[in-house]
Amino acid sequence: MKKAVVLLSGGVDSAVTLYLAKEEYECTALIFDYGQKAREELIAAGDLVAVAGVRKYLIKIDLARSGCALLDSEVEIPKGLKVSADGKVPDTYVPARNMIFLSFAVSFAETTGASAIFIGAHQLDYSNYPDCRAEFFESFNNMIKVGTKAGVDGREIRVITPVIDMTKKEIVETGARLGVPFEHTWSCYEGGKTPCGECESCLFRAEAFKKAGISVNG
Amino acid sequence: MKKAVVLLSGGVDSAVTLYLAKEEYECTALIFDYGQKAREELIAAGDLVAVAGVRKYLIKIDLARSGCALLDSEVEIPKGLKVSADGKVPDTYVPARNMIFLSFAVSFAETTGASAIFIGAHQLDYSNYPDCRAEFFESFNNMIKVGTKAGVDGREIRVITPVIDMTKKEIVETGARLGVPFEHTWSCYEGGKTPCGECESCLFRAEAFKKAGISVNG
Repeated sequence: MKKAVVLLSGGVDSAVTLYLAKEEYECTALIFDYGQKAREELIAAGDLVAVAGVRKYLIKIDLARSGCALLDSEVEIPKGLKVSADGKVPDTYVPARNMIFLSFAVSFAETTGASAIFIGAHQLDYSNYPDCRAEFFESFNNMIKVGTKAGVDGREIRVITPVIDMTKKEIVETGARLGVPFEHTWSCYEGGKTPCGECESCLFRAEAFKKAGISVNG
Repeated sequence: MKKAVVLLSGGVDSAVTLYLAKEEYECTALIFDYGQKAREELIAAGDLVAVAGVRKYLIKIDLARSGCALLDSEVEIPKGLKVSADGKVPDTYVPARNMIFLSFAVSFAETTGASAIFIGAHQLDYSNYPDCRAEFFESFNNMIKVGTKAGVDGREIRVITPVIDMTKKEIVETGARLGVPFEHTWSCYEGGKTPCGECESCLFRAEAFKKAGISVNG
């Protein structure tokens, strides 16, 4: 079976992506502790790999000085859905986060012989994150070809984004079809033990489950 | 003064690159502890920033599972100059190392408002490292443009490789002209307190200093 590395945050998108990847690949989930306020994300990610029966690898990195709302205790997490509506990159953008995560994944893939790197980015519902757009992943794949031993040797390592053109509702529906244990996912940006229900991520989650007609805790 | 981030390993190439960058930029040196056997590298890097009078930021990352000779105690560091002569990527290649380092540098540059990232890669003397070639850096720069907030906002962040087309001898000569304190650089791949004198990096160093007619300890 082909091998894949799957970036797993513990949220809905990456959980569904893991289950899509599992259909064709032997998967290892890469989980990043990058100092996110939402520590429950990490617990959710751990639960997900246990239920899904895949290997995991935890990478701890330091992004504390980014000034991003998801990390910095001085910067408040914005509330409401309006945040993504103005076309600007939101305060929850973490500088070069996906670039760093994917670079670690490339390293891991080169070492373990994996040919695919799965990431649950999507660009339909809110496309203001530059590192969640198809253009970025195409560019990243070109860089893998010229900048790695695997690329030079003609061995494929490719970033795959199976949910990139799905709406959040479609992602939830896909997950429901695949039996994703949504009760073990975590979306809230805040650091609480229960979701705040007010941040953009909580609101997108609630809206998507409602539209898909699926009831889930959290 | 414009700001730059400089990747500083503690070796000759990055030390000379730091001094070149310092001529035009206010520099912060990024130093990576990635589990390299050559712990003296980190001490050299610390000495260099002190003498050069620039800020430093140390990032500790986990690449232990790479199977690379520079990290893995099970894999011996190759001896002699023949290692790079066969056109193959050498055992000292660390999977996606420069990609990871540069991604952290992009994050740091976005956060601190730096417009340049300096790296001391060179491709003339031995071009077998895929992530030391101009083609890789061009591709990386394209990715920065499409995958970061800075890129989307039209603010420049660019990887600059000032020594890429220099021979090792020319790098040493440039450093001598700029007053680089070569006595505070470290080249040996091994983990000893004194250079082994037998690994490729020791041999390249000795050869370059000899050709440039410069005498230096280590």
